[in-house]
Amino acid sequence: MAKQRLRVIPLGGAGEVGRNMWVVEYGDDIVILDCGVMFPDADMLGVDLVLPDITYLREKTDHIRGILLTHGHEDHIGAVPHLIADLGFPPIYGTKLTLGLLGNRLREHRLHDKVTTVQINERVPFQVGQFNVEAFHIAHSIPDAVGFAITTPAGLLVYLTDWKLDHTPVDGRPTDLEKIAELGNRKPLVLVTDCVRVESKGYTPSEATVGEAFDNIFATAPGRIIVATFASNISRVQQVIDSAEAYGRKVMLAGRSMETNARIAFELGYLRADESTIIRPHEMSAYPDEEIAIVCTGSQGEPMSALNRMANRDYPNVKIKPGDTVVLSATPIPGNEVSVNKVINNLFKLGADVIYGPEARVHVSGHAAQEELKLVLALLRPSYIVPFHGDYRHLMLYRKLATTIGAVPDSERVLLAEGGTIMEFSPGFGKITGKAPVGYIYVDGTTVGDVGNVVVRDRQLLAKDGMLIVVVSIDSATGQLVAGPDVVSRGFVYMRQSQDLIEATKETVRAALANRNGSNPVDAAYINRKIRDVVSEFLYRETRRRPMVLPMVMEV
Amino acid sequence: MAKQRLRVIPLGGAGEVGRNMWVVEYGDDIVILDCGVMFPDADMLGVDLVLPDITYLREKTDHIRGILLTHGHEDHIGAVPHLIADLGFPPIYGTKLTLGLLGNRLREHRLHDKVTTVQINERVPFQVGQFNVEAFHIAHSIPDAVGFAITTPAGLLVYLTDWKLDHTPVDGRPTDLEKIAELGNRKPLVLVTDCVRVESKGYTPSEATVGEAFDNIFATAPGRIIVATFASNISRVQQVIDSAEAYGRKVMLAGRSMETNARIAFELGYLRADESTIIRPHEMSAYPDEEIAIVCTGSQGEPMSALNRMANRDYPNVKIKPGDTVVLSATPIPGNEVSVNKVINNLFKLGADVIYGPEARVHVSGHAAQEELKLVLALLRPSYIVPFHGDYRHLMLYRKLATTIGAVPDSERVLLAEGGTIMEFSPGFGKITGKAPVGYIYVDGTTVGDVGNVVVRDRQLLAKDGMLIVVVSIDSATGQLVAGPDVVSRGFVYMRQSQDLIEATKETVRAALANRNGSNPVDAAYINRKIRDVVSEFLYRETRRRPMVLPMVMEV
Repeated sequence: MAKQRLRVIPLGGAGEVGRNMWVVEYGDDIVILDCGVMFPDADMLGVDLVLPDITYLREKTDHIRGILLTHGHEDHIGAVPHLIADLGFPPIYGTKLTLGLLGNRLREHRLHDKVTTVQINERVPFQVGQFNVEAFHIAHSIPDAVGFAITTPAGLLVYLTDWKLDHTPVDGRPTDLEKIAELGNRKPLVLVTDCVRVESKGYTPSEATVGEAFDNIFATAPGRIIVATFASNISRVQQVIDSAEAYGRKVMLAGRSMETNARIAFELGYLRADESTIIRPHEMSAYPDEEIAIVCTGSQGEPMSALNRMANRDYPNVKIKPGDTVVLSATPIPGNEVSVNKVINNLFKLGADVIYGPEARVHVSGHAAQEELKLVLALLRPSYIVPFHGDYRHLMLYRKLATTIGAVPDSERVLLAEGGTIMEFSPGFGKITGKAPVGYIYVDGTTVGDVGNVVVRDRQLLAKDGMLIVVVSIDSATGQLVAGPDVVSRGFVYMRQSQDLIEATKETVRAALANRNGSNPVDAAYINRKIRDVVSEFLYRETRRRPMVLPMVMEV
Repeated sequence: MAKQRLRVIPLGGAGEVGRNMWVVEYGDDIVILDCGVMFPDADMLGVDLVLPDITYLREKTDHIRGILLTHGHEDHIGAVPHLIADLGFPPIYGTKLTLGLLGNRLREHRLHDKVTTVQINERVPFQVGQFNVEAFHIAHSIPDAVGFAITTPAGLLVYLTDWKLDHTPVDGRPTDLEKIAELGNRKPLVLVTDCVRVESKGYTPSEATVGEAFDNIFATAPGRIIVATFASNISRVQQVIDSAEAYGRKVMLAGRSMETNARIAFELGYLRADESTIIRPHEMSAYPDEEIAIVCTGSQGEPMSALNRMANRDYPNVKIKPGDTVVLSATPIPGNEVSVNKVINNLFKLGADVIYGPEARVHVSGHAAQEELKLVLALLRPSYIVPFHGDYRHLMLYRKLATTIGAVPDSERVLLAEGGTIMEFSPGFGKITGKAPVGYIYVDGTTVGDVGNVVVRDRQLLAKDGMLIVVVSIDSATGQLVAGPDVVSRGFVYMRQSQDLIEATKETVRAALANRNGSNPVDAAYINRKIRDVVSEFLYRETRRRPMVLPMVMEV
């Protein structure tokens, strides 16, 4: 590594959406930007979470000077509890709300006593190793979000993610355009920026438009109003509270993460409500339906969420009934459309009115659309740009956008990074120079890393055609079949309705074993492979399916 | 059943999208409307297709006078080969193109010699049992689509599905509004209608807007143009041919179903091209890239489709390269978004430009939006309405729409049917009167029905946490452990990295078996259950996961 260059490496979040984590390295100093989780793709069967891959940092933990967090969403802070020990417990820098939400996560993992956190304030520079860091305010769907300007010996790096320009945000604090303009005057070497909404023309509408839509609903809904949104969307929760207070309703919070996040945000002053507005579940019965609003989790159709349980008549305190109005204040994340549709169908079946979809205007994105991306590029005028927080198509479209408006002299100045891409920068230089190993790190149940690609691939095979187990007991001396073959299948065919197939399978095994030359020494591995081959072939011929065939040979 | 009433029952396609099939019954006469397949939900693991459930018809096959097909899409004709034998081979009525496409399917299943088909013509009434049937033209994304007006002793039933009003369709033949107005004057008793686009305001744009978008792309694309669409969207294929001819390009058809459908449509005169326009794969090398267009399957990201194979550099005749323009002329069906996004990402990675999404205007729906639904209701003025071809939420929104515009005097006149709902109609009477048994009938591999809910549920369990097999050999006389326990797991943990866990599992089994009172008679079922219980509990405690535990007890 050239000592005089700034090294920038995504360990997650580049060419994908989620598990954001960046390494910024100069000489012996490393600072980490964000440390989030990703929710698994549909084909990552049974996986709970996906973490960034910190292999690159394993030999360099002594160099890590700190972790800077932009805001309190899971895809930016969620991996801290899983990775902080392996990173050697570096200090964590964040704003008050971000650290508040992180603190809760650390407590859940019993790590809060082991982690050093440093609360930062916008526009108060601080030193991390040899890096000077300035945090500046950005508008997103959660308060207290910041971007970072990091002055390094090679030049200025600006890290700007999960932002939009919104001139009328819920907390009244728009993105700090003045600071962005000032940074532009300091000629940034490299901008690392979110690009997930680059497919959308124009501007992302202001959160204020959602407030208007809520007011219309709250003014007319005949019974209870139930608003589902992300628990982490603190601004949206505030909007429900605001509309409820304006139209004389109490607010009940439903869902564990919703209650937890709201409690922290209230404690730290990022949620505001009149003293009597928030009520507990058991207090609801004291009010008529038209004076009740509920804000809950489940906007993505998550199976165990409050809204999905309500839609399945399985939530103790809220039984959906005619007269209820349910508002889905979120857009389905790609992959969740079917689950969300099922929830909507079930709510309608229970008699509720359901308000959802883009035309209802009950949700806006927290990310910048094309015109906002252009405006910030025009203000910052960085020498090099690394778009992230998007799939590969978003990176390509962002490169096209930046090139089209002339923000960079040629498209090579927009570097297309994926997980592990090593980029090096110095004045007049910005290139991809290598690749660090980055794979998917799965969290399943309580453990990290004991479920990997092989395990997930097996799950995919099992999910497709099920499996069939063949057990035989062999005399260890003679190789004679002592017992079996026994056959059990799961996820392949109805065992009871397929007795003929099962019997024929056993006959196939018997025939294959009878063909063996009995004088050879017993070779369980050979018998195992033989059974697998003949049974797999037989079953495919009979059913055109390929169940996983698992022979078990016992020598007795 | 009251003999003087008309009975209408969906066996699929109501409260869901796909596998459309309706029973229309009066006295001893039954006519079936459509007979389609559904593509499986993501949680129907390993299933290839879902069929309508014809249980209701099992004892009534003697009453079936015919099957009427509206158009040649898979969700309307695809189940015929799977069900026609069980239905007793009733005659099948359809237009020329519909029967052409069906004939191909029947040949694939070697059924073409056994099925009687009757070609129908628009506006030429025909008799099916005691029903008089009139077919009338409708505009959809495939030519030769019709609606049916069925005169029964109880009154007139209008079956109108997969239509839009499009005044400038590709084949120049708009929906027969004159006929619809005439039917309205005959006071229909019941309208059975598609409602899948009821969430969309306004009118569905005409196919002509897609033609304009294609022309713009064909006028400017620097290299090859590759358009992916449904093989069944014959009209869209025609548009590619039209634009190609206008801008001097040859057209290559890629993908088996695309080639087959186009061949049939050409033979029957529903696709038109200059003699030299269509070229074979090996002829492509004779033309420069800017004179080539390819129309292919894969607009839904289907794994084995032509486009997905191109995106993975696995399609023999087309290697994607910089300069290629790929057009996704389709909207992802809910559940396919992630697969489609992956294809787009891969195409960008290979250097292609990709044109997709609503703002590109390269696709329009074949279904009616709100204003079209309203207009047809105003013309038809049926006494009762049964919306279908939509999820439950679509039915509810359609009911709201019909009630809001005063098309029916009260919302009860819009009957909300799901699979198996029995409805009865006579002048002044229209009610849900019962429920026929309707479940999911799965096609997996070559067989129908030997994969059912239990099998699919097992696949879901296997997909989540995998499984673990425990094999023990027991002396059948003494109950002593003779060999084992052996343990094999798949989809649960890495066996190699989890030796301690596997050893501890075996120890748990040994301990459980040692606790048995040896003097009891050997009870393999008891031992089996005992092993399953202790191992499941042990593994959940250790990993918080619940693999399927399968004990195999061999008595030797």
